[in-house]
Amino acid sequence: MEAGSVGIVKTQTFTFANSPNKMLLDSGRKLGPITLAYETYGKLDSDRRNAILVFHALSGDAHVAGKHHKNDPKPGWWDNMIGPGKAFDTDRYFVICSNVIGGCRGSTGPSSTNPKTGKPYALGFPMVTLKDMVKAQRELIDYLGIDQLLAVVGGSMAGMQALQWTVTYPERAALCIPIATAARQSPQNIALNEVGRRAIMSDPKWQRGNYYGSRAPPTDGLSVARMIGHITYLSDKTLRIRFGRRLQERDRLSFSLKPEFQVESYIHYKGETFTKRFDANSYLYISKAIDYFDITNGYSSLEEALTVTKGKFLVISFSSDWLYPPLESEELVNALRGANKDVVYYELPSTYGHDAFLVEGEKMTQIISYYLSHARGRDKLERYQDENQPTS
Amino acid sequence: MEAGSVGIVKTQTFTFANSPNKMLLDSGRKLGPITLAYETYGKLDSDRRNAILVFHALSGDAHVAGKHHKNDPKPGWWDNMIGPGKAFDTDRYFVICSNVIGGCRGSTGPSSTNPKTGKPYALGFPMVTLKDMVKAQRELIDYLGIDQLLAVVGGSMAGMQALQWTVTYPERAALCIPIATAARQSPQNIALNEVGRRAIMSDPKWQRGNYYGSRAPPTDGLSVARMIGHITYLSDKTLRIRFGRRLQERDRLSFSLKPEFQVESYIHYKGETFTKRFDANSYLYISKAIDYFDITNGYSSLEEALTVTKGKFLVISFSSDWLYPPLESEELVNALRGANKDVVYYELPSTYGHDAFLVEGEKMTQIISYYLSHARGRDKLERYQDENQPTS
Repeated sequence: MEAGSVGIVKTQTFTFANSPNKMLLDSGRKLGPITLAYETYGKLDSDRRNAILVFHALSGDAHVAGKHHKNDPKPGWWDNMIGPGKAFDTDRYFVICSNVIGGCRGSTGPSSTNPKTGKPYALGFPMVTLKDMVKAQRELIDYLGIDQLLAVVGGSMAGMQALQWTVTYPERAALCIPIATAARQSPQNIALNEVGRRAIMSDPKWQRGNYYGSRAPPTDGLSVARMIGHITYLSDKTLRIRFGRRLQERDRLSFSLKPEFQVESYIHYKGETFTKRFDANSYLYISKAIDYFDITNGYSSLEEALTVTKGKFLVISFSSDWLYPPLESEELVNALRGANKDVVYYELPSTYGHDAFLVEGEKMTQIISYYLSHARGRDKLERYQDENQPTS
Repeated sequence: MEAGSVGIVKTQTFTFANSPNKMLLDSGRKLGPITLAYETYGKLDSDRRNAILVFHALSGDAHVAGKHHKNDPKPGWWDNMIGPGKAFDTDRYFVICSNVIGGCRGSTGPSSTNPKTGKPYALGFPMVTLKDMVKAQRELIDYLGIDQLLAVVGGSMAGMQALQWTVTYPERAALCIPIATAARQSPQNIALNEVGRRAIMSDPKWQRGNYYGSRAPPTDGLSVARMIGHITYLSDKTLRIRFGRRLQERDRLSFSLKPEFQVESYIHYKGETFTKRFDANSYLYISKAIDYFDITNGYSSLEEALTVTKGKFLVISFSSDWLYPPLESEELVNALRGANKDVVYYELPSTYGHDAFLVEGEKMTQIISYYLSHARGRDKLERYQDENQPTS
């Protein structure tokens, strides 16, 4: 195993909320039993103060770092950030990630068996919110015997969960690191998600969600949804650099309705491969949960919502991210400052768009490593920030 | 009829390219006979020098101004720009607009009858390019007896046609006014169009394009394509102002897969109404034509392509347009200046996104009216521009 890797890892499961102690959801409905698939890396200190909870984004899962077996072609989705000597240094920290409820990667979701019927939940699965997801993960943290996490962290939808955690459980994390995210889902992003959902739900193979027994799940619709999503994850500049207007394996236009440009083949590929690893109903449920997200729910303003938090904040955005643009991080940072919170903010220069939170490992590592080491020494940190602010 | 309106207008048709004189297309295939639906407003001067050709965008048609009958609920799509005393002042200019080939609003397209089979062309219709569309429109201009147009003008895909006209027929327009457009379709926009096409073509009702006899055309797919398109026409800011996160006709979340937010209902409405007036195959063909567009085709650089032009240019972009961002207009303007062309450029401040070219009538009128009156007096114009540059 290469240096810096956590090595071979195994996904574990934790089941709770057994009947009659089902978990109450935001919708008023109850869910149970609930299984969470999770992974951990590094060792929990004897005082249990070195744990970091990493959340995952829409299509992610619990497998953040390392490989599942020797010949695993790919490591976990944030392997560039988690491991010995990395940003989330597993020689020092105990890192946890669990698949969200509503998901399809080991945690209870619409494709799981409904104990009442013995069949997959399908649309019988209750709608969940990010707050519900975080609540389930708090059960896992309780189970692991951790009173206060050192940090909660995540990019995109995962950054929303990190924010939700600090608002719902103010005492239970010292640091919050929301990356490439927002305090609420914007109407533009709701609209984009709704088009994806519409593509899935108008695929006749979706069958109102009851496709699990079928050999033909709604891959066409899910693929279209993913293609839309994937375009929003990249920047215009990335596409110009990577593909431009180059044709795919041909010298001249074919003048047909088939994909002709490289960028078309690329998004087709992204759409198709996604359908092999993701459940269409989970896509519907999780994208809805993102759309529901507004950290001010139940409060009169963003500042008021953030007033209840007790930890410190490191907020990171990326200059070319148009899905969760820097403006939204700034809104969050201003409200945190208005609420007199301890917040450090970086808008990192990047051409990678929203995907930067996955690929700009070096830039994030520089900041996060130092922050985790020094977050309790405030003065030093501000000096560091002044000296190290990346330039565009 | 209200002041400033061209009044009651009638769509006319012009048919050419009758066998064996079919029109040669970029693809090498031939098309004929070709009918163009067109409208004209104002009067052609005796010296035939006051004609302005307005092109239309993807979902537009020849009906740019006025009403078709007294009780017509809506005027033409650019009625705010065309009429007595308006930017394209029909007291002074003779304004022409024709529906593009490949379209479904009166001109020959995939839904037209193929004379060989007596049935709709469907996918038997040859792929067309914007150059082909412009070539067909040149036939109309010939037929109308106009040697040189005063101006060619259009926004979005129509701006591309205006550019194509000046490159292909340099002698045949004195002025070119490309608005909210680009010299080539970007890979991001190709990707967005391809997702729309995929949505249509994976709708089982599409039936490989042979749905014309059917009672159930592929409205689900076309609606999804239009929803994607519509999101790209608006700015994030417009959506925040118009809809925010407000719920549609309810006080609280329904926790269901139905649309719950106003912005969702809005794009559904836009998608659905579009399917009532537009043909899915035309959407495929026209979006492909846009993707093919690159004014440098056949030239070694943008500057070289533009060197052949002989008219003057007024280029307009809008600050919040992310489909055809100001950067792309700047690229065009820089190349025009590099080619030593006479060019005036405005980036107009607007929050309306790409749609600004339809709704920012007042800002455009101020500039275009003056430009059309003074474009032959270069010094005055530059002075005017300096004095009237809108500020953000």
